[in-house]
Amino acid sequence: MIEPILKQGERLDGLPAQNIRIIQNPDMFAYSLDAILLAYFAGVKGKGSGLTVDLGAGTGAVGLFYAPKVTGPITLVEIQPELAEMAQRSVALNGLQDRVSVVQADMKAIFDVIQPGSAETVLSNPPYFSLNDTTKTNNDQHYEIARHEVTIDLPGLAQVANKLLKNNGKFYMVHRPDRLADIFAAFAQRKLMIKRVQFVYGKADREANMVLVEAIKAGKPGGVRIMPPIVAYTADNDYTETVKTILYGQAWST
Amino acid sequence: MIEPILKQGERLDGLPAQNIRIIQNPDMFAYSLDAILLAYFAGVKGKGSGLTVDLGAGTGAVGLFYAPKVTGPITLVEIQPELAEMAQRSVALNGLQDRVSVVQADMKAIFDVIQPGSAETVLSNPPYFSLNDTTKTNNDQHYEIARHEVTIDLPGLAQVANKLLKNNGKFYMVHRPDRLADIFAAFAQRKLMIKRVQFVYGKADREANMVLVEAIKAGKPGGVRIMPPIVAYTADNDYTETVKTILYGQAWST
Repeated sequence: MIEPILKQGERLDGLPAQNIRIIQNPDMFAYSLDAILLAYFAGVKGKGSGLTVDLGAGTGAVGLFYAPKVTGPITLVEIQPELAEMAQRSVALNGLQDRVSVVQADMKAIFDVIQPGSAETVLSNPPYFSLNDTTKTNNDQHYEIARHEVTIDLPGLAQVANKLLKNNGKFYMVHRPDRLADIFAAFAQRKLMIKRVQFVYGKADREANMVLVEAIKAGKPGGVRIMPPIVAYTADNDYTETVKTILYGQAWST
Repeated sequence: MIEPILKQGERLDGLPAQNIRIIQNPDMFAYSLDAILLAYFAGVKGKGSGLTVDLGAGTGAVGLFYAPKVTGPITLVEIQPELAEMAQRSVALNGLQDRVSVVQADMKAIFDVIQPGSAETVLSNPPYFSLNDTTKTNNDQHYEIARHEVTIDLPGLAQVANKLLKNNGKFYMVHRPDRLADIFAAFAQRKLMIKRVQFVYGKADREANMVLVEAIKAGKPGGVRIMPPIVAYTADNDYTETVKTILYGQAWST
């Protein structure tokens, strides 16, 4: 019986392919396809025994969906106490407390807890909207912090990710395509070399609404690969076979 | 009878959709799908009466395929005398000599001929490969100059395009996705704000092998749109319907 672990307003969502369940509270924050695709897109170095850090982890979806791909420790960093607490319960729910930890902190202060240059992999599904973009403002403070660059912006995120990573460590991020120029500028400034990009198109004849980015610390410049397009929905509004496989298929290969 | 206008080794290729024919010499240079898709992708300001400049025009494919979309003058700039001469004959062949002119010059010296800030639209299908990329070197000098950044590189091209354009004028370029970081950096340095990007994937499950870019001079930062994916070939190696329509369909809407 798992019901007792849920508080009022909470529900359990899951990712069958990875056999992971996440405690959600739609009034505060709910992960979406972005988190799943980032965890799927993110690569694994060697046997996956290095440290992984999820920056701005929310309820822990990205880090927990990624967890079955690796064998090493994962630290979920989330500034909002309520979300970090839900993430902590989801870690326990999935029996991952031996190698997944939650740190409730501002990511800019994470170096009190994690040593610079110690991470093999950094994951982030950060706030998408700049503060001067008021088209998506939300009165709820939890959503506001998760969606707008209130507590962290792209240059700040790139700085923290770069400082966390070892040389040749990888940073994986999901973001909105309309921020692509900002992403390239912020990453270039921190010598995070973008190596692999994948666009997600809502439908085959629509503009991309999501971008997945892989960057390497202290890598060589140039050589960006644009991976095959991911189309999310068919013309009939069903998930495409590609997305169905990611959601419901066999566990992702590591 | 058009045969007499062809010199030895030359052939006529055409774009049925636009009813344009181009004199080619495969020993020296031949345009490809890149040129067609760039001309298709490029927008038209107002009624298209402003000046258009094609930088690194080769045999004139991009500018001539674009010509039916606009009513204004077009200047094709090409450094290689043999290619410029072929472009000149293609202009005449298509009866466009009243508004399409060819300037054989290094684009960096184009301001002897074209006034800075006078162009509404700049088009370019430039050399794709940096000089330290030796994977695609070609012994033929014509191909070498057309394909490697021997006479112009990305920062240089961005500088010339920016100087040619009016404020709010548009620069349209086709390039290789692996240069995407270089493209964003070079454009940002010259305040060419990238507004629209479209990736071309050889097949639906392949990495992109072409990128189309629209930038605006002195535009606002941010707001990049990633247009729907163009897939060139079906699994059976036929052109997709999208590409067939571009090649053989009705004249492109203006």
